[in-house]
Amino acid sequence: MSSSIIPTGASTERPATEPFDAVEVIVTKRDRGELDGARIDWVIDAYTRGVVADEQMSALAMAILLNGMTPREIARWTAAMIASGERLDFSGLSRPTADKHSTGGVGDKITLPLAPLVAACGVAVPQLSGRGLGHTGGTLDKLESIPGWRAGLSNAEMLAQLEDVGAVICAAGSGLAPADKRLYALRDVTGTVEAIPLIASSIMSKKIAEGTGALVLDVKVGSGAFMKDVERAGELARTMVGLGTEAGVRTVALLTAMDTPLGRTAGNALEVAESVEVLAGGGPADVVELTVLLAREMLAAVGRGDVDPADALADGRAMDVWRRMIAAQGGDPDAPLPQARERHTVSAAKDGVLTRLDALQVGVAAWRLGAGRARKEDPVQAGAGVVMHAKPGDEVRAGEPLLTLHTDTPERFERALDALDGAWSIEPAGSAPQLLPLVIDRIS
Amino acid sequence: MSSSIIPTGASTERPATEPFDAVEVIVTKRDRGELDGARIDWVIDAYTRGVVADEQMSALAMAILLNGMTPREIARWTAAMIASGERLDFSGLSRPTADKHSTGGVGDKITLPLAPLVAACGVAVPQLSGRGLGHTGGTLDKLESIPGWRAGLSNAEMLAQLEDVGAVICAAGSGLAPADKRLYALRDVTGTVEAIPLIASSIMSKKIAEGTGALVLDVKVGSGAFMKDVERAGELARTMVGLGTEAGVRTVALLTAMDTPLGRTAGNALEVAESVEVLAGGGPADVVELTVLLAREMLAAVGRGDVDPADALADGRAMDVWRRMIAAQGGDPDAPLPQARERHTVSAAKDGVLTRLDALQVGVAAWRLGAGRARKEDPVQAGAGVVMHAKPGDEVRAGEPLLTLHTDTPERFERALDALDGAWSIEPAGSAPQLLPLVIDRIS
Repeated sequence: MSSSIIPTGASTERPATEPFDAVEVIVTKRDRGELDGARIDWVIDAYTRGVVADEQMSALAMAILLNGMTPREIARWTAAMIASGERLDFSGLSRPTADKHSTGGVGDKITLPLAPLVAACGVAVPQLSGRGLGHTGGTLDKLESIPGWRAGLSNAEMLAQLEDVGAVICAAGSGLAPADKRLYALRDVTGTVEAIPLIASSIMSKKIAEGTGALVLDVKVGSGAFMKDVERAGELARTMVGLGTEAGVRTVALLTAMDTPLGRTAGNALEVAESVEVLAGGGPADVVELTVLLAREMLAAVGRGDVDPADALADGRAMDVWRRMIAAQGGDPDAPLPQARERHTVSAAKDGVLTRLDALQVGVAAWRLGAGRARKEDPVQAGAGVVMHAKPGDEVRAGEPLLTLHTDTPERFERALDALDGAWSIEPAGSAPQLLPLVIDRIS
Repeated sequence: MSSSIIPTGASTERPATEPFDAVEVIVTKRDRGELDGARIDWVIDAYTRGVVADEQMSALAMAILLNGMTPREIARWTAAMIASGERLDFSGLSRPTADKHSTGGVGDKITLPLAPLVAACGVAVPQLSGRGLGHTGGTLDKLESIPGWRAGLSNAEMLAQLEDVGAVICAAGSGLAPADKRLYALRDVTGTVEAIPLIASSIMSKKIAEGTGALVLDVKVGSGAFMKDVERAGELARTMVGLGTEAGVRTVALLTAMDTPLGRTAGNALEVAESVEVLAGGGPADVVELTVLLAREMLAAVGRGDVDPADALADGRAMDVWRRMIAAQGGDPDAPLPQARERHTVSAAKDGVLTRLDALQVGVAAWRLGAGRARKEDPVQAGAGVVMHAKPGDEVRAGEPLLTLHTDTPERFERALDALDGAWSIEPAGSAPQLLPLVIDRIS
């Protein structure tokens, strides 16, 4: 076996038709080198063509995760992913376009009231969204709990709705950054999701290809977020703002709290109902505050900083756009939302102040109740989820309801309750909750 | 796309039938954690069963390459690879067993004279070998240039030949450490060959499963070797010696020079002819010296340190065993060896001393001439290779032959000559060659 450890891949002659060799590209990044533009273009293109195999791309992704990328590499990687597919063009619209992207959190239904609110202020909002995987819900899953609503629109339908209604929330077509779609699915199963260069290029390639004029990023920080600490969240935000700005998209990022769930619901129909409350002028304070803040950022980014979105919320214009947006995609805004068949209430064990309610644990509980999926092909339950009767800072009394768990399948209660073990703290009256501020930082 | 960057793999519920999750194992190593024994056993077993996919194992291999493994992890990983297949048992033989493994080098034909030499001294030598890939030749490829010789033996045939002849060089069956076979092929195409924990466990799992009582490791250092520097070669040697010793195999390692080729030939039949010269009492000094040194180590490791192998070389006993060993596997030791149809001679450009002849460049030239293969399924040319008329330290004269290139396919000369560009230096008479000592270190 004298030859069995020679690094033959590196010295293997490459196929004559390919200008580069996958192993050489991997080894360059593995050994902390910088990849040149031609090699980045090639590896993304060759991966899309199937010439670079999944096992090669996952090794490269791990090397990128552990060794990082320079800003120049990240920009080229993003451009190569954009070049792998089509680009949309909103320049023919009569109004400016602004989009928002959240890195995902528990109870994060902000897109639902935000898109119609900003549209009500005269800006077109093309919100291409995804389905949920894991412990955070997907915007499309939430809207699909509305009877009749459909996520799939053609590009022409999307443009017509943007012009006519001003807001569209729909599934991203398979034509935008197809390389990213394949790479994202690969990263998901290979422990390589958490690489800032790959996260930033994944998000920004789709947003730049989508053709929005302005973009507001909501980068979540805390237990329920992808980024657990402020430092890494800030690095991700700065990387994305840099990529957007370089590509001509006015981009700003807010770092916002995800140590506790947003609002009082986590689950598909439950979150739609809460969003409608916000559009009706009610709803939880944190959801209203963040919706209005993000709307202000989106308006400012397209030069409409003089318009106050709070007005459009208060006078019902945002609700009007919501109803037209839902109806334009086949949904009935007046239909009753699905409700789960079974409920289980968890009560406070003692009197005091709720000082902590962990976002991740609530998210996992909602997921296990049926609100989320473990595999892409799994169905979700429209009615499943968690309703929070108290939020950190609220006083609670022994025996009063703290949470209600909703599901169609009561055998799920046990594992959901397991997930909630130790998820909250009740301390003596007068104790202050330990919470991140709702907005931690702003990066532009 | 609010949910699209959530690390869902890590939180995805695993199939109920598997005790662990591949992403969790990858993430542990990625984040510099130590893998426990149960997870190592599982990941190797699940990879063998196809439950852990290639793209997951390659990401894990890259994380191991960049973050390392503890000695405890390496030992368990090796044990898990051994457990993936069968083990041989030489305990019924009437003589002790000793094996040798080289990490591979250019012109490294040492196994050919060494196995019969050690057998002539009363020790059984079970030499399970491989074919070549890349710029170093494979022992089996070399022996297959002998008309009639066959590499494939059953376990029963191998045991019978060991008892009867004392030496066997044959193909490792597919039953030994099958997990390693799959992992090695994967590492080869994913830039993850150069991980010391994976190299050490790959080599040692096969040697321990093979059941040898003693093992001498020839760890090559220099341009033509896998390990370019002494420090990393020493780390690999210490890791392997530790693994062997812990498994009850008396193991010793020599670090030896591979900055220039061993002997005066690189190529299959060319190296067989040179090996026969050594067995006949002649041959290049470096090949003879290293063969005898390694034979002494193998004999000492099984308690026969009193036997001088130089005697068995001088009196023809080693040659007798060689002839019986070749004949026992169908080969005709008297048949003329194949010769290449075309030759091209490279001459010295000036008078002086050859101070340098680069091992890697000669190896790549021999490979391009047809002595090696770029892909596993490629054939090799028996007669192709490079003959060196001068070695570092030799005086050369302008116009006299320095190298002769051999091939059946003359269109290969050009790329072989490209590989040799700048491969040697000729300096004024009296200049000393800059060479590593033949034996750099000994680790036991």
